[in-house]
Amino acid sequence: MAGNSFGTLFKLTTFGESHGAAIGGVIDGVPANMPLDVDRIQLELDRRKPGQSAIVTQRKESDKIQLLSGVFEGKTTGAPIGFIIPNDNQKSADYEHIKDVYRPSHADFTYDKKYGHRDYRGGGRSSARETACRVAAGAVAKQILEQLGVKIHAYVDQIGTLRIPPETPIDLTLIETNPVRCPAPELAKRMEELVKVIRKDGDTIGGAIACVIQGVPIGLGDPVFDKLHADLGKAMLSINAVKGFEYGSGFLSAEMRGSEHNDVILPDGGTKTNFSGGIQGGISNGANIDMRIAFKPVATLMKDQVSIDSLGNKVVVKGKGRHDPCVVPRAVVIVEAMAAIVLLDHYLRSKTTQL
Amino acid sequence: MAGNSFGTLFKLTTFGESHGAAIGGVIDGVPANMPLDVDRIQLELDRRKPGQSAIVTQRKESDKIQLLSGVFEGKTTGAPIGFIIPNDNQKSADYEHIKDVYRPSHADFTYDKKYGHRDYRGGGRSSARETACRVAAGAVAKQILEQLGVKIHAYVDQIGTLRIPPETPIDLTLIETNPVRCPAPELAKRMEELVKVIRKDGDTIGGAIACVIQGVPIGLGDPVFDKLHADLGKAMLSINAVKGFEYGSGFLSAEMRGSEHNDVILPDGGTKTNFSGGIQGGISNGANIDMRIAFKPVATLMKDQVSIDSLGNKVVVKGKGRHDPCVVPRAVVIVEAMAAIVLLDHYLRSKTTQL
Amino acid sequence: MAGNSFGTLFKLTTFGESHGAAIGGVIDGVPANMPLDVDRIQLELDRRKPGQSAIVTQRKESDKIQLLSGVFEGKTTGAPIGFIIPNDNQKSADYEHIKDVYRPSHADFTYDKKYGHRDYRGGGRSSARETACRVAAGAVAKQILEQLGVKIHAYVDQIGTLRIPPETPIDLTLIETNPVRCPAPELAKRMEELVKVIRKDGDTIGGAIACVIQGVPIGLGDPVFDKLHADLGKAMLSINAVKGFEYGSGFLSAEMRGSEHNDVILPDGGTKTNFSGGIQGGISNGANIDMRIAFKPVATLMKDQVSIDSLGNKVVVKGKGRHDPCVVPRAVVIVEAMAAIVLLDHYLRSKTTQL
Amino acid sequence: MAGNSFGTLFKLTTFGESHGAAIGGVIDGVPANMPLDVDRIQLELDRRKPGQSAIVTQRKESDKIQLLSGVFEGKTTGAPIGFIIPNDNQKSADYEHIKDVYRPSHADFTYDKKYGHRDYRGGGRSSARETACRVAAGAVAKQILEQLGVKIHAYVDQIGTLRIPPETPIDLTLIETNPVRCPAPELAKRMEELVKVIRKDGDTIGGAIACVIQGVPIGLGDPVFDKLHADLGKAMLSINAVKGFEYGSGFLSAEMRGSEHNDVILPDGGTKTNFSGGIQGGISNGANIDMRIAFKPVATLMKDQVSIDSLGNKVVVKGKGRHDPCVVPRAVVIVEAMAAIVLLDHYLRSKTTQL
Repeated sequence: MAGNSFGTLFKLTTFGESHGAAIGGVIDGVPANMPLDVDRIQLELDRRKPGQSAIVTQRKESDKIQLLSGVFEGKTTGAPIGFIIPNDNQKSADYEHIKDVYRPSHADFTYDKKYGHRDYRGGGRSSARETACRVAAGAVAKQILEQLGVKIHAYVDQIGTLRIPPETPIDLTLIETNPVRCPAPELAKRMEELVKVIRKDGDTIGGAIACVIQGVPIGLGDPVFDKLHADLGKAMLSINAVKGFEYGSGFLSAEMRGSEHNDVILPDGGTKTNFSGGIQGGISNGANIDMRIAFKPVATLMKDQVSIDSLGNKVVVKGKGRHDPCVVPRAVVIVEAMAAIVLLDHYLRSKTTQL
Repeated sequence: MAGNSFGTLFKLTTFGESHGAAIGGVIDGVPANMPLDVDRIQLELDRRKPGQSAIVTQRKESDKIQLLSGVFEGKTTGAPIGFIIPNDNQKSADYEHIKDVYRPSHADFTYDKKYGHRDYRGGGRSSARETACRVAAGAVAKQILEQLGVKIHAYVDQIGTLRIPPETPIDLTLIETNPVRCPAPELAKRMEELVKVIRKDGDTIGGAIACVIQGVPIGLGDPVFDKLHADLGKAMLSINAVKGFEYGSGFLSAEMRGSEHNDVILPDGGTKTNFSGGIQGGISNGANIDMRIAFKPVATLMKDQVSIDSLGNKVVVKGKGRHDPCVVPRAVVIVEAMAAIVLLDHYLRSKTTQL
Repeated sequence: MAGNSFGTLFKLTTFGESHGAAIGGVIDGVPANMPLDVDRIQLELDRRKPGQSAIVTQRKESDKIQLLSGVFEGKTTGAPIGFIIPNDNQKSADYEHIKDVYRPSHADFTYDKKYGHRDYRGGGRSSARETACRVAAGAVAKQILEQLGVKIHAYVDQIGTLRIPPETPIDLTLIETNPVRCPAPELAKRMEELVKVIRKDGDTIGGAIACVIQGVPIGLGDPVFDKLHADLGKAMLSINAVKGFEYGSGFLSAEMRGSEHNDVILPDGGTKTNFSGGIQGGISNGANIDMRIAFKPVATLMKDQVSIDSLGNKVVVKGKGRHDPCVVPRAVVIVEAMAAIVLLDHYLRSKTTQL
Repeated sequence: MAGNSFGTLFKLTTFGESHGAAIGGVIDGVPANMPLDVDRIQLELDRRKPGQSAIVTQRKESDKIQLLSGVFEGKTTGAPIGFIIPNDNQKSADYEHIKDVYRPSHADFTYDKKYGHRDYRGGGRSSARETACRVAAGAVAKQILEQLGVKIHAYVDQIGTLRIPPETPIDLTLIETNPVRCPAPELAKRMEELVKVIRKDGDTIGGAIACVIQGVPIGLGDPVFDKLHADLGKAMLSINAVKGFEYGSGFLSAEMRGSEHNDVILPDGGTKTNFSGGIQGGISNGANIDMRIAFKPVATLMKDQVSIDSLGNKVVVKGKGRHDPCVVPRAVVIVEAMAAIVLLDHYLRSKTTQL
C-alpha cells in the first residue's frame, strides 16, 4: 500500500517517474454512457504544462496524453480509463551531479532512508510531474460534473505578501486573462513583476490558491471521518508543496464568536452568510464551497546551497536546471483537478444513501 | 460507504448517536502481543469528558468504557478490540423543541436532506460525542507508539484573539496545569477569563490547537496521495468544528522565499530549521512534526436565534441545555488521539516497504 | 488489517471472542430511510443458535442481540448499526485442559505462531460463534433486499454420502419443515438418523449446502476482479469449515462441451438453460443464482486424539464439551446471511454505474 | 468502484479492452530494493500468449510488455510499476457482425444492460485478454516470493472426463514437457488428442487446474473474512470461465468423518495428512497449499448458434474467428499469477501482525 490511489468510487491510480518512459494512470469507477471530449482533457494538461508563460519554468515538456481504454464512440463505457503521458526528456545525465546529494527540503533524504535506494533523476517519483496525471483524471471528472451543473474555479490569491484582500468580490472570468491566474488584474501585474524579480535572484517564492465550487448538490459528504471538507483537505494537502488548508471561515474562525459565525438559514434553505463554506456537519448544503490552500516556495533554487551527501559529507548543491520561481500559477489547475475528483467521488457515494 | 472507518492497517470503525443506548467502535489491525493498560484508556476519556472543569459544558456524562474483546491477560491478541461507552442520558424529551427545527450552522438541515429523516436527539450521529470513540482508539495507539518512542502532545494555542506568539518556546509539561490546557500560564489565565465572559453572554468562541509529535521514526508516510501530512490533515479536518489545518511553516510559507524556507541539512541528517514540519516529500524525516488546527466557535448558543423549520417556516431557536462555550480545551485530547491513529497506521504501513 | 471487515459499500465489521463479555459488530453503509423490523433480526439469530434441535450442539447460548444505533422510529437513519450479542457463558475453566494443546485441524497452532499468544478459551476469535454477527448483518441486508424483490434460500443438499440428486426439483417451502433443513423430506429423515449415529460414535460428519437467489436485478457485479460470483465465493469460503464453492454448472462444467453448456438466450432476454448460474461475465443476468458450498466435518470430536502441545510434546486431546456432530443444518442461515451481504453490497455499487 | 483492482497491500489495477491501443496496469505496494528480472516477466507472458502450440487459439498476439516505472538499475524502487501491453490487432471490422448480437453465455447481454452500451470489439473489457495483465503482476510477485522460498506450480488436472486420479503422486517438473501442461505424460497425450477432436468439431471443452504452493511461511492469512483460502478462492473465481474452487479435501470433505479428516499434528509441527490443504483457521500452517479450479468450456464456438439481438429479434450467431477449443493449458499461468499475488499480499500483511 504505497498510496498511489485516490478516491473510493471514482478512483485514480498513478505511476511514473519524471525520467522514465512515461507517467500515467488508471481512472476507475467512471460512470458509463457519459459523453467525453478527449480534446478538453488535453486542454487542461496544457494549462498545467511547463513553458506556457514567461513566469513559469522554461522546461520543454509537451505533455501529450494518450487515452488507451474506457472510451468508445465518444462515450465512457464504464471500463477503467488507462492513459499515459510520455516523458520527452529522459536524459539522466543532467542529474548525475545530485545522485548522492540530499538537497535541502527535497525528498532525497527521506526516500533514500525509506526505500534503501531511489531513482534520483529529476526527483523520480517525488517529482511534481506526477500531478499531470491528477490533471488528466480531474479533467474527466470536471466534464462529468459540468453535466451535473457543478463548476470549479481556482485562482491565485496570494504570492509572497501580495494578497487579494479578504471579502473582495471576485470575477471568476478574469482568472485566465493573465499568466499569474489572479482575477484581480492590477494585483496580478504586481505579482508578475515580483515573480520576475525573484527569478532574477535565483530564488523562489510561496503563494496561496483559492478555490470556489458552485452548483454543488445538497447532500455530498459523509458525516464522520469522510466529511466533504476532510476529503478536500487531504486532496489538497497531497499536492506537492502544500503546507496548509482552510475552508469557509478557516483560521479566522478561531477569533470569532458563535453569534457572528453562525449562518442564519433563510426560508428558501439558503444562508445569509457562508462562514460554513458550503459544508455543515461534513455535508454540502448547496452554498458555494470555498477553500484556500498555502504553497511553500519551491525548494530548488538557482543558488548554491550547503547540504550533505548520502555518506554525511558536507557538499555544496549547485543551482542548475530550469525550475518554477513560483508554483502557484501552474498549480491552479491541479487544485481544480483534485477538487473535481473529490466532488465526483462523493457524488457517486451519495447515490447509495437512499434507495 | 458511510465513512465510519478511519485508517488502513490500524483502523477504527465507530457507531452511535448521543441519545442511543451506547456509542462504541471496533479497532482492527492492533499489533498482537503488546502490553495494554486498560485503565490508561479510561484516563484519556476522562480528559475529554464533560464537566471536568468550570470552563467546559456541565453536562453529566460518565464516559465509562467497556472493552469487549481483543485483550487477553493484559496483552493484545491481534483480534479486533470492540468497545462500548454507554450513554447515561437517553432522555429524548429535552429535544422535542428542536425536532423539526434547523438550527443555524448545525447539521440538521443537511442530515434531513441527505438521509430523508434523522435522529434529532442531541444531534444524533452528528454529535461531537462520537469523538469519545476516537479518544479510546487513540489511547490504544498512543500506548503502542510510546513503546516505539513516539510522544504526542497537543495544547491550546489560541482562543479568540489571545494567542501564544509564534516562535515562543513551549514547555509541554505545563499543558495539564490549567483547565484551558495552554502551556503559557499567564495567557491561560486570560483565556480562562475570556471563556467565562463569553459563557455569561450565552455566546461561544473559536480557538486553535497546536500539536507536536516527538520521536517519529524516519520513513513514515507514502509519497503521493497518502503523504503523512495529508493523512494528518484529513484526520484533523474530520473532527467536529475544525476549519483549517497547517503544518510546519503553514500559511506563513506563502509569504516566504525558498532561500529562507529551505531547511539546511546537517551532517547528522538533522536540519538547522524545521519549516518542513518534520515531513519532506510526504515522509517523516525524524524531526518533530508540528501542526496547527483551527476550530470555529460552537454553533449552539444560549441565545435566541432566528431560523427555519423543516417546512420552511421562520422559527426562533431557543438557547437551552448545557454546552461548551469553547471547545478547544476538551478537543486537545481528540487531536492527540487522531494524530496517534495516523502515526501508528503509517508505522504499520512502513513495515511493508522493505522486506 | 486483520481482515475483520467484509463488503465495500454495505460493510460489516465484527469483533469478539467466544468467551469475552460479548461479540458484536458495526454495519456501515446501510441505506437510509428503510423500514427495519428488529424482531426479525432476532428470528434469524434463533435459526442459527445452539440447542435448537436434537441434532445440533446442546450448548446453551441465548444469542440475544442488542441494537445500539442506526435505527430511529422503526427506520434506518443511514448511520451505522452497532450491535452486541452478550456471551452467556464466560467461564474459562472449561478450557484449562486445552490451554497449551494444539488440537488437530483447529486454529490453535496457527494462531499461536502468528500472534505469539492466543485467547484459548473456546477457540477465542477462531470460534464459529463469530458467525452470529454475520447472521445479524445478513438479517438487515435480507430485509432491505426483500423490499427490492430479492429472495435468498439456502438448504442442506448433502450430509456424508446422502445427497439430493442433481436436477431434482426443489420445493423451497419445505426447508424449515425438518431440523436438517433439507427440502427432500424422505432424505432429511435419513440424514437425521445418520447424524444421530455419528454423534453416538463421538464423531462428526461433513456436508454441503445449496443456495438459490431469486429475483436478482440484471446488472449486479463488476466485470474483472469483483465478479459477482467471485465475491459470493469469497463470502462462502470465509465461513468456518468451508472447503469448496461452485456456482451454476460448477465442477461438472469441466466435463462439458461448449455446445451443451451454452445457455441459449430467448427473445425475452431469459435463457433456456441456466448453466451460467445467473451470472455472465461476472454480472447477474436476471436468472436465479445458484451455488453449492462444501463443509468439512467439525474438528472437535468426542474421542481421544493424539496431538502435541506448544512445547512439541506428544499429548492426548480428550473429547469433552458439547459440539455439533454436523454443522450444515445451522450453517444454512450463515450462507443466506453472507449471500445477502454480497447482494446488497453489489446492489448499492450498481447504483453508481450510470448517472 | 468498478472492481479493477485486486489486493490490499500488493495491489494490481488493470485497464484495457482487447481492441484498444493497449492493455496495461499499475502494480502498487511492490517492496522496495528487490532485484527484478524484467525478461522473466516476458517469459511468463509468453506462457500465456496465443499461438504457442497447436491446441490453443492461433490468434497472433505478440504480448510484448513495456515496463514504464518503478524499476531502477535492476531493482524495485517501491514506486508503482506501470506497464502496457500493446494490442497488435486493433481492426474492429472483424466484429461488425456481432455488434448488436447477444452471444450465448457471453457478457454481451449483461454489459449492455449494465452500462447502456459497450465496446463490442473482441469482447471489449470482458475479453480474457485482460488476464495478461494479471500474468505480468503475478510474474513480479513470483520473483519476490521465490526470494522468500515460496514456489507456485499449477497444472492441468482434467479436460473433459479425462482426469488425473486423485492421490496420484505428481512430478511437477513434467508440467512444461507437453502443450497441455499436464504432468501425467500418458494422459497428456490423450488430452491433446481430445482437444484436437473437439476443435475439429468446432466445439470447445471444459477442464480443471490444480495448483500447489510450496514453502509457504507459517502465519499467512487473516482469521475471519480474509482467510487465506477465501482470498485465493476469490482470486481464482475472478478468472474468466471459472465455475468452482476447492482446496485441501474440497468437495470430498462433505462425505468424510471428522475422525478421518482431522490432520494429526506431529511433534515437529507438521501433519500426518494434509486434508486441511495447508491452511487452518484461515492461516497457513507451513504445509503445501493445494487447490483445484474448474473451468467451463469456452463459449465461443465455430458453429452456428441461435440467439437474440439487442432489439430481441431472433438471430443466428455465426461461428467465426480463432478461439481456444480448451482454455486450461493457457490458464495454468493465470492461476499461478493470481496465487502469487494473493500470497505476496498476505506476506506483506503478515509483517504488521507483530512489531
